[in-house]
Amino acid sequence: MAPIDTPEAPLKSSSAPENSSSMGQLVVDVALRVLLFATALVAVIIMVTSKQTKMIPVAPGLVVPLDAKFDHSPAFIYFVAALSVACLYSIITGVLSVFALMRGGSSTKMQFHFVMFDALLLGIVAAATGAAGGVAYIGLKGNSHTRWNKICNTYGSFCFHFASSILLSLVSSITLLLLVWLSIYVLSKKIARR
Amino acid sequence: MAPIDTPEAPLKSSSAPENSSSMGQLVVDVALRVLLFATALVAVIIMVTSKQTKMIPVAPGLVVPLDAKFDHSPAFIYFVAALSVACLYSIITGVLSVFALMRGGSSTKMQFHFVMFDALLLGIVAAATGAAGGVAYIGLKGNSHTRWNKICNTYGSFCFHFASSILLSLVSSITLLLLVWLSIYVLSKKIARR
Repeated sequence: MAPIDTPEAPLKSSSAPENSSSMGQLVVDVALRVLLFATALVAVIIMVTSKQTKMIPVAPGLVVPLDAKFDHSPAFIYFVAALSVACLYSIITGVLSVFALMRGGSSTKMQFHFVMFDALLLGIVAAATGAAGGVAYIGLKGNSHTRWNKICNTYGSFCFHFASSILLSLVSSITLLLLVWLSIYVLSKKIARR
Repeated sequence: MAPIDTPEAPLKSSSAPENSSSMGQLVVDVALRVLLFATALVAVIIMVTSKQTKMIPVAPGLVVPLDAKFDHSPAFIYFVAALSVACLYSIITGVLSVFALMRGGSSTKMQFHFVMFDALLLGIVAAATGAAGGVAYIGLKGNSHTRWNKICNTYGSFCFHFASSILLSLVSSITLLLLVWLSIYVLSKKIARR
């Protein structure tokens, strides 16, 4: 255990320097969870509000309104579900982290559970980003081999919403990776210190 | 560094149970890395060998041979690249883990670096699985809203290759998640024990 550096707590001699660095790490942890919350929430809102209706000529002299909506593709439904879960998760763990900050430090057990779920969420959100990105790329560029036509030349604002949303979910994935890395760093620091 | 438990080192008396459990965890670690190697390698091989040529009628009386290949879609090129990286990574870390096993235990520093890269690879492989899965689903079911026709009714063996490959990469992702969880468990056990 580390030595004393505060005169106020002579009995808890070993905890002071460990505690101050642990507090710094908790502040970064809370900041990353707030970032995760913000990016996931905005990504879901942008995706859900991306509906665009255009008048499409289906026959000579006949023009009908056709919608482009996110729930036309299962990849985007999964995307919205995964990002919503990430958003909810970030609220719960963010609040718990703030409580730990107010109590003056987090327990190893709590960090252990957090990093387990962070890693699981990382997999889920990364897969959602990949799925949405793969399908959106076909929408943007089309695929001449399978004769899938691009739709972004018609539904411009819809595609802009999608691109922004996928970019934000990429930020969410990276934030989750940073959270996992931070927790592992904190855990291995604890081992090195003892 | 993991302590010794041989009778030649009687001074480090407290280390025996730690070492034996550390060895058990290393064996599981090596087994998971072998599984990761096998699934990633087979997924890449199945994907790369999925080429199928069919005679497609393009006009009345005119039939031309048309290929279906994985590199017709950028999502699948990324998939092959990501799984190849995972395969190479599993070889390197697997060999290092076997060396650690022969030396009688792994250091905390090595575990720290492994779990960092494991988490990064988890994100990359999960995103690749998602991207390939999203595009393959369109190939399987089509999308009536964007008028993207399904191709799996024509290229059956090609699609079977794809489905197997994506399933294997899902196993790779789960293996990487288990590797991250195992490392975190080992690290927090070390903290609890000290």
